[in-house]
Amino acid sequence: MTLAGFQELIRQMYLRKDLARGVDGTFMWLMEEIGELAATLRHGTAQQKAEEFADVLAWLATIANVAGVNLAEAVYQKYGRGCPGCGQFVCTCPDAGKP
Amino acid sequence: MTLAGFQELIRQMYLRKDLARGVDGTFMWLMEEIGELAATLRHGTAQQKAEEFADVLAWLATIANVAGVNLAEAVYQKYGRGCPGCGQFVCTCPDAGKP
Repeated sequence: MTLAGFQELIRQMYLRKDLARGVDGTFMWLMEEIGELAATLRHGTAQQKAEEFADVLAWLATIANVAGVNLAEAVYQKYGRGCPGCGQFVCTCPDAGKP
Repeated sequence: MTLAGFQELIRQMYLRKDLARGVDGTFMWLMEEIGELAATLRHGTAQQKAEEFADVLAWLATIANVAGVNLAEAVYQKYGRGCPGCGQFVCTCPDAGKP
């Protein structure tokens, strides 16, 4: 599945509700899913982890839809030509650095 | 860009560092990026919003790499056959409900 295809799938599925909630209301749901992901990373099965990652991605896509951001374009622009820090495809930034 | 291709790009770029940090250390970076995304959604330009979405996706992909989760498979399994709540491709769950 392409990232653009996934964002479009989520747009078709939820855009009407997303627009009604707006960015703030939608962000709260993302935070709830982030919390569930954290718990599952500690205690969950492989299946539960996969489901929580999917939910976080879905809420992120839904916020991007409301905010008018194209996720595929965004990641290509920032990471498609190498690490934003060092420009390499295998990062050579100092280990103490952010990436 | 496919979701699998993006996850692989991030794997090649950062896996050595990601494994050294582990899930907990990597999750803290995701949280920092989530905070930056929240701030940018309120006050940022379109370009800044796109960059913050890209960073959140990159950290999510990096945690998925450490946790052994295939993001493309995860979203297909959960959302590829319709809304997990109602099973429809345009969600018909009650508006008060989670999705």
